[in-house]
Amino acid sequence: MKIRIYGDSISGNCLKVKWTADYLHLPYDWAETGVLTGETRTPAFLAINPSGQVPVVILPGGRPLAQSNAIILHLAEGSDLIPADAYDRAVMLQWLFWEQYSHEPAIAVRRFQKHYLGKPDSEIDPALLTKGNAALALMNARLEANGSWFAGGAISLADVALVAYTRVAHEGGFDLSGYSAVKGWVTHVEKTLPIG
Amino acid sequence: MKIRIYGDSISGNCLKVKWTADYLHLPYDWAETGVLTGETRTPAFLAINPSGQVPVVILPGGRPLAQSNAIILHLAEGSDLIPADAYDRAVMLQWLFWEQYSHEPAIAVRRFQKHYLGKPDSEIDPALLTKGNAALALMNARLEANGSWFAGGAISLADVALVAYTRVAHEGGFDLSGYSAVKGWVTHVEKTLPIG
Repeated sequence: MKIRIYGDSISGNCLKVKWTADYLHLPYDWAETGVLTGETRTPAFLAINPSGQVPVVILPGGRPLAQSNAIILHLAEGSDLIPADAYDRAVMLQWLFWEQYSHEPAIAVRRFQKHYLGKPDSEIDPALLTKGNAALALMNARLEANGSWFAGGAISLADVALVAYTRVAHEGGFDLSGYSAVKGWVTHVEKTLPIG
Repeated sequence: MKIRIYGDSISGNCLKVKWTADYLHLPYDWAETGVLTGETRTPAFLAINPSGQVPVVILPGGRPLAQSNAIILHLAEGSDLIPADAYDRAVMLQWLFWEQYSHEPAIAVRRFQKHYLGKPDSEIDPALLTKGNAALALMNARLEANGSWFAGGAISLADVALVAYTRVAHEGGFDLSGYSAVKGWVTHVEKTLPIG
């Protein structure tokens, strides 16, 4: 049985799941579910995910699973996208939680408001720009100090999750030219997965 | 060698780490690190955790690890706080990510502003109350439908993480009396860990 992925193609959180399934050659059906068109708020969708968010997947066997980073952790169990070393694995998890707390709520939210809702900058909370740039600066410093990947010596789910909104950060008004280590890492991850 | 936990005792995120270590009988030193007194912003602390957040731990061996839920996942590896079944484990991770995205940024943030910074309600973003109540309602519906625990048939890290700010939600102006399944679950978790 295939995985069924309910996702919106404009959402980095949803694309993480697609990229992970593609990389691992897991068969799936993609059920396009538009956030902008209200498809995540219908009674039928809320029965699958009461929090009204995409992505959500129906696993082979019929059970649902929500939260992008929980889904990719489940799909990638036992694969080379999760470091074998316990400390590297913990560092991967550290970046997965950081991404959802300190990166996505600034960079993805500003991108959504600016690029998809068409809000002028004057109507967007200025804290989002400050917080997003702080996240990009932290990533850049980490890559300058620790090399090519966020956890361990190879690509991991930390890179998959972090690249999702970093690679489209310009759509949120973030200028990556000041973060050269991040720019190089985005290209590297896009080629490795591959995506783009 | 002991774990060294840098934490602020008023922070639910930090207490998650303490409770997990206590439950698992892991030896540790607690280094009280005040958020309100600026101790998470000193150069010495930023050298340990560049994101300037507690909790952060120094593991036996000397390496640092940040992000409360990543820390408890690492400390609890192989213990009964992590379900053995792959789906139950994925559901636990789902709730850990949901807690950091949809629960903590509303309930913990409103509690901090109201209880610790002493802000009057009129100066607190009204969206925090709405978002926090939506989180509590979702938890209540889940417990009513699925029983005593958030993942699998016993206490897991999902319960440890979710109880941290739910048990002090009243300090943020949230009234748990309308969420009776949540109230019962808080008491149950407090007795099981035990904390409180």
